[in-house]
Amino acid sequence: MTPAPNPERRNERSRRATLDATIALVGDRGYAKVTIEAIAARAGVSKQTIYRWWSSKAALALEAINDFVGEAIDFPDTGDIAADLVQQLNEVTRLLKGPIGTVFRGVVADAQGDPAIGAALRESITEPRTRLCEKRLAAAITAGQLRADVPTRVMTEMLYSVVYYRLLFGTDALDVRDTPQLLEYTLSGLRPQ
Amino acid sequence: MTPAPNPERRNERSRRATLDATIALVGDRGYAKVTIEAIAARAGVSKQTIYRWWSSKAALALEAINDFVGEAIDFPDTGDIAADLVQQLNEVTRLLKGPIGTVFRGVVADAQGDPAIGAALRESITEPRTRLCEKRLAAAITAGQLRADVPTRVMTEMLYSVVYYRLLFGTDALDVRDTPQLLEYTLSGLRPQ
Repeated sequence: MTPAPNPERRNERSRRATLDATIALVGDRGYAKVTIEAIAARAGVSKQTIYRWWSSKAALALEAINDFVGEAIDFPDTGDIAADLVQQLNEVTRLLKGPIGTVFRGVVADAQGDPAIGAALRESITEPRTRLCEKRLAAAITAGQLRADVPTRVMTEMLYSVVYYRLLFGTDALDVRDTPQLLEYTLSGLRPQ
Repeated sequence: MTPAPNPERRNERSRRATLDATIALVGDRGYAKVTIEAIAARAGVSKQTIYRWWSSKAALALEAINDFVGEAIDFPDTGDIAADLVQQLNEVTRLLKGPIGTVFRGVVADAQGDPAIGAALRESITEPRTRLCEKRLAAAITAGQLRADVPTRVMTEMLYSVVYYRLLFGTDALDVRDTPQLLEYTLSGLRPQ
């Protein structure tokens, strides 16, 4: 007897195909030019299926980012905050240079005209990662590697903002070779004085 | 005898009305929702006139920003780099909190999907101001107030990126009361060691 198809598994396959199609198409054509129709066609699912699972292209893009990035950007803790930040920022820089960066830029663009997308972006992408970074920075403060009088949230902004600035304004290239030096300049001001 | 109308002056009046209408409408409704038609109607000029002078909504927005901001963000030089940066960043923060910030966010959003808009944004807004900041920072290095081994361009990115991050990601409020403290954290790492 052939077992009945497992609807959960079928859904998972469609979900994955849809997220993969989103990243591939946006990476190729840019976020603004990609329609839900095109994603559905590439994923081999119906437009209705996509709209049943995701309320908007931005919602789909946010899930695609989280699905792709996964545990990859969890914070390492080797006991050396400078080394851990270099490793982590290099990983972020590498991701943002690829198709995930194009997806991310698209959602940031959408967020400028739609506060609900901005809230979703913060809730699903930036806030969870900011909290992980803050936790790591707090451990470094306890270890005496960072000064205790700068809020860890502000430290996180100082450490990451330049990468986002370069990504969104297209000024200087995102280059992992720059990471250690850039971090060192910022950390110079964040070490115990 | 009535003098013939001066076409240059008439153009300047239409130009100003169009730029003012752009800032007012975008400030009210958000960049994405404002059409060239709506700007033309509010300014009392024809759509054709607008398209004759500006190639796109982004081009119009960039000129509106520069026209509004004008000399206001030229770099002060009192001889005290920390005080001058506080004054300058406060001015930028104040501008970005108002309708100009909404216009600016709209152009940054547009730039994510259109490299030509990104280039225009850099050429007309960020690069000229980066160069002014670099010039002021170079004077501070000469005066022994900043370390000489960090490129002034990277210093500028470090000093401004957090403000842009907060604006575009809508995380922490832009508040001029935060400026001196935030600058001090960054400057701690940029002073002669």
